[in-house]
Amino acid sequence: MLQVWALDGIREITPGDDLVGVILDALTEPLHDGDIVVVTSKIVSKAEGRVIRADDREDAITRETVRLVASRTSPTGHVTRIVENPLGIVSAAAGVDASNTPEGTVLLLPVDPDASARRLAEGLRQVARVGVLITDTLGRAWREGQTDHAIGAAGVRVFEDLRGTTDAEGRPLVVTLPCVADEIAAATDLVKGKASRRPVAIVRGRGDLVGELDLPGARSIVRDPARDMFRQGADEAYAEGFAAGRAARD
Amino acid sequence: MLQVWALDGIREITPGDDLVGVILDALTEPLHDGDIVVVTSKIVSKAEGRVIRADDREDAITRETVRLVASRTSPTGHVTRIVENPLGIVSAAAGVDASNTPEGTVLLLPVDPDASARRLAEGLRQVARVGVLITDTLGRAWREGQTDHAIGAAGVRVFEDLRGTTDAEGRPLVVTLPCVADEIAAATDLVKGKASRRPVAIVRGRGDLVGELDLPGARSIVRDPARDMFRQGADEAYAEGFAAGRAARD
Repeated sequence: MLQVWALDGIREITPGDDLVGVILDALTEPLHDGDIVVVTSKIVSKAEGRVIRADDREDAITRETVRLVASRTSPTGHVTRIVENPLGIVSAAAGVDASNTPEGTVLLLPVDPDASARRLAEGLRQVARVGVLITDTLGRAWREGQTDHAIGAAGVRVFEDLRGTTDAEGRPLVVTLPCVADEIAAATDLVKGKASRRPVAIVRGRGDLVGELDLPGARSIVRDPARDMFRQGADEAYAEGFAAGRAARD
Repeated sequence: MLQVWALDGIREITPGDDLVGVILDALTEPLHDGDIVVVTSKIVSKAEGRVIRADDREDAITRETVRLVASRTSPTGHVTRIVENPLGIVSAAAGVDASNTPEGTVLLLPVDPDASARRLAEGLRQVARVGVLITDTLGRAWREGQTDHAIGAAGVRVFEDLRGTTDAEGRPLVVTLPCVADEIAAATDLVKGKASRRPVAIVRGRGDLVGELDLPGARSIVRDPARDMFRQGADEAYAEGFAAGRAARD
């Protein structure tokens, strides 16, 4: 049995807040060894002071963009940009968040969410041997809508490695690397909600995934662009190819 | 509180099996109104007789391919093909499953998983007003590993539509369309496992998502390729562009 619930009554977070204390204060029952504490990146960013002045969200996205992956202009003139952010994560807004922030400011992602997760896990492990995930909401290729994903992890396995295991007929399993960190992140979005202030959830029932603090972080989920068949949008790749084809006259 | 658990003791499914009966027999406690019953597509395919002879999994993938999206040959000669299957779903193997099937056979996806989900929901609603999801394991662009996704749905909202709602400061929420069906599918993979025979899970605690049987199905999650910036792999789009650029030289 997996149990997933969100903590109520977490107050507005401001720079310098001690999130470990905030989480422990909001618990209505003690953490158990093997629990996974799942924290929305928004409050980690706020605690770490990642709020910047920005007249314009688009300008902030540009500054957080390491690489433009794809862009499209809608008939109404709205430009959607899919970009790689400094963490290597491909998303629609480089992790720039303009909701639930003071007017004229935007929130950037934590500089190093794996390190943030580790600090949280170290603090919370004074109480119980928990794992920590930090999440962000991301769109997907090929599918409408968004789901929550893990962008930081500490003390919890991000992949359940089934390579080398066999099916009931004794043949190797072809699907081999379930990204349990993203699955846990997705599960907690179902209890956190988006409009409500419930940025922390607890997952109980997969203590087998909880381990040492030096397990690989969520950075290991990000695919190396060199290995990524979708490292660039189709239109952008076509345009580059077209220009190269034109220039390739003999 | 969200509770997620898998049903134990579901026997091997063969063509013609009544899955509603199989699920009801495996329950250790009664279904509640508002529960969501999440079924791995593999047993739906088996019950619907979607097992075909195939000397070769690659050959079966070719036959199930509507459109080649991208392909890559590894240094060892292994070809990975990302294809669109007849359901519009983009995945690495067109939904062709060669694990846990009799030797010399492969399993295809249900012909119409939304219709399969609806038949299951109609049957299970003799007992309680539940929603039904049918899941498949899919890889993702930009991220390593796989997670479970919803490929069939009945009686449950696949998106939680937050468009028009506002944040705590009264501004419109930018992230607007959480794909709760995929998040529920992901959550259940955490209890179903892959190597074990636990293909059915129950999710309790989001009865607000359960509704009429004619709600849009999981087909509505699939993005129209015309709207998809990643409808084709970067290498494939570049090559097409290059050829067109060459041809346009003179």
